[in-house]
Amino acid sequence: MSCKCIAAMSGGAPLSLHTIERRAVGNKDVKITIKYAGICHSDIHQAREEWGKGLFPMVPGHEIAGEVEAVGKDVTKFKVGDKVGVGCMVDSCRDCSSCKAGDEQYCATGAVMTYNGKSKYKHCEEYNEDGGAPTYGGYSQCVVVDENYICKIPDGMDMAGAAPLLCAGITVYSPMMYFGLKPGMKMAVAGLGGLGAMAVLIGKAMGAEVTVLSRSESKRDEALKELKAVPWRKEVRHLDSLFCDAPPPTYLNTISALYEPQLYLGMLAKHGKMVLVGAPAEPMFLQAFQLIPGRKTISGSLIGGIRETQEPPEMLDFCAKHGITCPHELIPADPAKVNEAYERAVKSDVKYRCGRRVAGDAWGVLGGSVLVPGDLGPF
Amino acid sequence: MSCKCIAAMSGGAPLSLHTIERRAVGNKDVKITIKYAGICHSDIHQAREEWGKGLFPMVPGHEIAGEVEAVGKDVTKFKVGDKVGVGCMVDSCRDCSSCKAGDEQYCATGAVMTYNGKSKYKHCEEYNEDGGAPTYGGYSQCVVVDENYICKIPDGMDMAGAAPLLCAGITVYSPMMYFGLKPGMKMAVAGLGGLGAMAVLIGKAMGAEVTVLSRSESKRDEALKELKAVPWRKEVRHLDSLFCDAPPPTYLNTISALYEPQLYLGMLAKHGKMVLVGAPAEPMFLQAFQLIPGRKTISGSLIGGIRETQEPPEMLDFCAKHGITCPHELIPADPAKVNEAYERAVKSDVKYRCGRRVAGDAWGVLGGSVLVPGDLGPF
Repeated sequence: MSCKCIAAMSGGAPLSLHTIERRAVGNKDVKITIKYAGICHSDIHQAREEWGKGLFPMVPGHEIAGEVEAVGKDVTKFKVGDKVGVGCMVDSCRDCSSCKAGDEQYCATGAVMTYNGKSKYKHCEEYNEDGGAPTYGGYSQCVVVDENYICKIPDGMDMAGAAPLLCAGITVYSPMMYFGLKPGMKMAVAGLGGLGAMAVLIGKAMGAEVTVLSRSESKRDEALKELKAVPWRKEVRHLDSLFCDAPPPTYLNTISALYEPQLYLGMLAKHGKMVLVGAPAEPMFLQAFQLIPGRKTISGSLIGGIRETQEPPEMLDFCAKHGITCPHELIPADPAKVNEAYERAVKSDVKYRCGRRVAGDAWGVLGGSVLVPGDLGPF
Repeated sequence: MSCKCIAAMSGGAPLSLHTIERRAVGNKDVKITIKYAGICHSDIHQAREEWGKGLFPMVPGHEIAGEVEAVGKDVTKFKVGDKVGVGCMVDSCRDCSSCKAGDEQYCATGAVMTYNGKSKYKHCEEYNEDGGAPTYGGYSQCVVVDENYICKIPDGMDMAGAAPLLCAGITVYSPMMYFGLKPGMKMAVAGLGGLGAMAVLIGKAMGAEVTVLSRSESKRDEALKELKAVPWRKEVRHLDSLFCDAPPPTYLNTISALYEPQLYLGMLAKHGKMVLVGAPAEPMFLQAFQLIPGRKTISGSLIGGIRETQEPPEMLDFCAKHGITCPHELIPADPAKVNEAYERAVKSDVKYRCGRRVAGDAWGVLGGSVLVPGDLGPF
């Protein structure tokens, strides 16, 4: 079926209106009318091919909240009218140890990304000899997804604010669980973008004593006022855990930033863990003696699995219980407005890093802007 | 009491005969006649001030095996004639969370090193207003140590081969336990010096499938023959754990070495851990995307605590049970011979890294040479 969308027709091109075909609803498929789609900074990176070659036309969006419009005959988990969400993945091999463990994001042969990917597994009806049909994301009227890669949005949760939980929320929730964040522990969040703000909210709800690491006075005030977190002070020491929402590549091009791992590791408690959830392109310098004397750890973590996104008491239910959704602003599904949001994201990102923010953007632009595909009109 | 020793009188000076004073046996003290003292590469680094300023005269040696000669009146753990060992530490604050957890090596205010340290805690009889008397290591006839920092050498264990277990052995044993090495897991050992050889022996005894990472054909043969380990092959993948006996600083001055972390991380399985137990002075380049997609971890680890060195079924008993001691060669306690051993260690170290070895040195020179202080004569 045809579906209106907002797409980049080539790498770096401004987004424009486009029409794609969605597959017919298969036996295990769910057709979702998309109500909201978060704008993640990684959408910009991919649409502009900053992370490597992309598949075009590209329809970004991997923070999808919508309503079930139709279900295949073998679907058991969802019914028409359900409020549901789709995150970064729409399929995986289903057979490797990671998939079986519910860690589809670490699928041995690669999860199928919600967009800029291909339906490469033979179990998918869209598989073909070219490695599968391309996937298209949430900046569109609807999407058809296998029920196993769909999450139920808890009753009463604001759907626009829920959308970014499917990426930013699970990206910070998953490592908190895996690396053992416990109530009463001290956690620091380095970098206060979209991921950082979610890490503060979820970490505090987990009972951790959250400190925001920022060298900017304005962010300190914001952290205190808006997120009720304790900002970094010089005397802060002995953090049990440190979730690092690493800044985008350009940030690390400055000399001072190259020394940041050392600064952060110095603040970590003995046996403490620094978890990287953001991936700057530039390398960091790491010295073994920053890790050895305190048995410290640096780890990486990638989004999260479907089970831990979905199943009570996991992320979505945890957020519902604690009244957490992502602070955001709504953007109409007008290509010009989305292009403007992209520009603002990139600009305010720069400003943000410099300690200034665009008034009224709240935490929104980085990871928190939400597109309203309903504006694409009836289909 | 006076005690003959082999000491460096200043940084970088050749070792020479010297006489030090050992404290009188206090109530909780044990006087040990030193039978064997391992020569660790870190002895050379410290005697030559390659790791920073040293305290001179310096009597190296933190891999001590000997016999109890006298005990203080409140000593409960040892009696005259017991075979005992002393490792890298002879005291710590005893009050911080690390000390209370048996992780004295991570003491919040710093463990007192067996040599090149000061008896800085007020609970020690050698404490003074200058921060305590200097400590002197195992290249000497005897040592007086608080019973809480002494380990019993299991009956029947070769004492010369036991000495290096107190440093090299516990340094690799501790992280295997802490980071969860389990029977059947695949572990790689990168770097086949003194630590590396012990890691292979202990890892295999733990039931791990041990792979040695080496790009040298001669080391491959040695690993197969002498340690019965599987050497690195190109197709080796999915290592659950990787213990990195990082090469000394100069090694990392070559461009190819700077890329090694990437090579090693690429071989790690998803969710795998790389543990650094060696500390090159040069920084490594680390990229977040080497850790994030597989939720990989880099950690450091420093020697081990007294409890895990000592208490059954911990390291010393584990090694006794599995017939593990450190392959070594004996060096008489003649300063000329020790200086020669230092030169050989440095030279064969270079050759080792280049893939050639001095015939007959076995694993000995790096961490495995053992000094026989009995040769210092009666005292």
